[in-house]
Amino acid sequence: MTDFKATKAMFDLPDGVVYLDGNSLGPVPKAATSRVAEMMTEEWGKMLITGWNKAGWMGFPIGLGDRIGRLIGAEPGSVVTGDTLSIKVYQAVASALELCPDRKVVLSDNGNFPSDLYMVDGLLRSLGPDYELRVVAPEDVAANITEDVAVLMLTEVDYRSGRMHDMKALTELAHANGTITVWDLAHSAGAIPVDLSGCNADFAVGCTYKYLNGGPGAPAFIYVAPRLTDRVRPALSGWLGHEAPFSFDLDYRPGSGIERMRVGTPPIIQMTALSAAMDIWDMADMADVRAKSIALTELFINRVEATCPELRLASPRDAKQRGSQVSFRFEEGYAAMQALIARGVIGDFRAPDIMRFGFTPLFIDEQDVERAVDILADIMANRLWDTPEYKQRQRVT
Amino acid sequence: MTDFKATKAMFDLPDGVVYLDGNSLGPVPKAATSRVAEMMTEEWGKMLITGWNKAGWMGFPIGLGDRIGRLIGAEPGSVVTGDTLSIKVYQAVASALELCPDRKVVLSDNGNFPSDLYMVDGLLRSLGPDYELRVVAPEDVAANITEDVAVLMLTEVDYRSGRMHDMKALTELAHANGTITVWDLAHSAGAIPVDLSGCNADFAVGCTYKYLNGGPGAPAFIYVAPRLTDRVRPALSGWLGHEAPFSFDLDYRPGSGIERMRVGTPPIIQMTALSAAMDIWDMADMADVRAKSIALTELFINRVEATCPELRLASPRDAKQRGSQVSFRFEEGYAAMQALIARGVIGDFRAPDIMRFGFTPLFIDEQDVERAVDILADIMANRLWDTPEYKQRQRVT
Repeated sequence: MTDFKATKAMFDLPDGVVYLDGNSLGPVPKAATSRVAEMMTEEWGKMLITGWNKAGWMGFPIGLGDRIGRLIGAEPGSVVTGDTLSIKVYQAVASALELCPDRKVVLSDNGNFPSDLYMVDGLLRSLGPDYELRVVAPEDVAANITEDVAVLMLTEVDYRSGRMHDMKALTELAHANGTITVWDLAHSAGAIPVDLSGCNADFAVGCTYKYLNGGPGAPAFIYVAPRLTDRVRPALSGWLGHEAPFSFDLDYRPGSGIERMRVGTPPIIQMTALSAAMDIWDMADMADVRAKSIALTELFINRVEATCPELRLASPRDAKQRGSQVSFRFEEGYAAMQALIARGVIGDFRAPDIMRFGFTPLFIDEQDVERAVDILADIMANRLWDTPEYKQRQRVT
Repeated sequence: MTDFKATKAMFDLPDGVVYLDGNSLGPVPKAATSRVAEMMTEEWGKMLITGWNKAGWMGFPIGLGDRIGRLIGAEPGSVVTGDTLSIKVYQAVASALELCPDRKVVLSDNGNFPSDLYMVDGLLRSLGPDYELRVVAPEDVAANITEDVAVLMLTEVDYRSGRMHDMKALTELAHANGTITVWDLAHSAGAIPVDLSGCNADFAVGCTYKYLNGGPGAPAFIYVAPRLTDRVRPALSGWLGHEAPFSFDLDYRPGSGIERMRVGTPPIIQMTALSAAMDIWDMADMADVRAKSIALTELFINRVEATCPELRLASPRDAKQRGSQVSFRFEEGYAAMQALIARGVIGDFRAPDIMRFGFTPLFIDEQDVERAVDILADIMANRLWDTPEYKQRQRVT
């Protein structure tokens, strides 16, 4: 059983704050700062160039990948960290397209995070005018997995509403059609149990600065199914994905296994911070995290609906259809969110009218949720963002 | 006049070590560790998600780019940091190729760092069979800038020998031929004065963990000539290169200026370490750095040649043709370098027989060079790597 009191104690959270934005940027693990300082003085400072071997830096991308892999149902040795999520999306889709050379369509949905669409748009423009990015409504995805679709690229959990796609069913449907899948787990990893292996997923990508708490700009990760790894060509074929990086051959030969999806020199300081965050995750069981997440989101929804009639639920009501976040629509949501943040409850706002709240069981508990709703209800009942005192304060600060 | 005593005092260097490998990984600036710790506790820890605006994180890629830009003769607002050098090579060459749509050849040389060749090989395979990466000997580059060459991609300073290309002359030759240039400054930035603007360069890329001392895995940078910026399409078209990242539009519209070469979320912890390194660089004048670098390399070459007859100079003898490193060939160079490192003089080895030494005036002075040569001469004269005592010690440690 995951000890959530213990995990909560391992984060530095500002006094008086209820942080419901861990789905955007997780908070700092207490051990991360000293771990990074130690790496900088003892490893970088004293080992200098030899740190790549002596301190094991060269192995960080794979070591961290395996620890993340446990949370997303990946086989050992099938996940590697590095670069940014955008880069990993590009790599996954470029590789996937080459597995279906006779098809030219990438199918996605308009609930996807825009950057994923931008990266694929950029890739397809490079590949030529025959290629097409086809974007449909989330509910129309299944019906649009047609015979010309090479790649189905979806974000499992919608970043605005928390709505979940059925990864297993859509992957099966895609495979029956000869389509390769690329799953973006940005709002899944550390948020919900993911079973890449059990779903027979092909490629998956994600970031580590949200639920995984790796810090601002923490590296991304990529998963390639072991049955595919040795067949994929990494379009971004960099030094550290080479079979023998230190032989400095002029010709590229991809490394074996997931190592070939590495590109350039890994960001060791960021990875050290991430490793402190993964120490906390190593204590967690995703089934426990999911159970607590559902309890927290149900509590939040019920209390908000009971006390804030102006807010309309924008997330699925059925917890099984929902990730680890809850969104409400409210026309004056931007101003209301600013007032809420000023009172120490940090969520965020997504245009045009979505107030978004993330629930992260490693450091959020029932008391936090109750306190957040009490403050929100007070703000809403008194339209606090609309009072002269509040407006005055906003101008001053 | 640059105060090199002051800059040296700003680095943490292990006692008894002469570090002649700052061309691979620069040492840690004393201020970097506390700066990073402060960023982690005060910014990430207390500001949480609001750090992106309140702490100015979102502006780091451009702010650091301008500070690097001063060292390489770039116009303000023409350099942005992020990703890895491999990724920036890909972006630059992909963008450059689109400026010459009727040509399909990328010309480079076999002295280039292999990863640059790997990345272009990967790019060209994606673009299709019409494209060709043509690799010639460094001395044959000029003669091979033929009418079918779209892009000339060169590393200015050879990573093994320190031999320099003439950036100005080759860029002029390329332009006269309608060819776009991509210069890799990995061994130039902070090593020699570079005048991108004066050379009329088109694209340049580089890393910040070598001479710039940004730390292991520090971000890369990319330069695009201001006359080209608004014409180039960033093949890696990510979120933060969008004109309006936070409007979350489904369609990509590139941002204005160099911002469009940004891709994903920047690595803020690494960038904070880099900013501490750039504080030292802000105190330096590249003309002074070059003068001292030449003095140090001349001193090293003269003394080594006077005391170690077995070593043959592999770098250009003329300082004007040489970057800030010196290489010697020696058949047993690997073993000799290991013995040298064991005695506290850290250089590195590149197969098959190159002993490589980097000279970094910010923290290396004449006394360091003299001490390094004394130890090297002792090792060579007594073939210390070949003695039973040394071999015994190697087995134990």
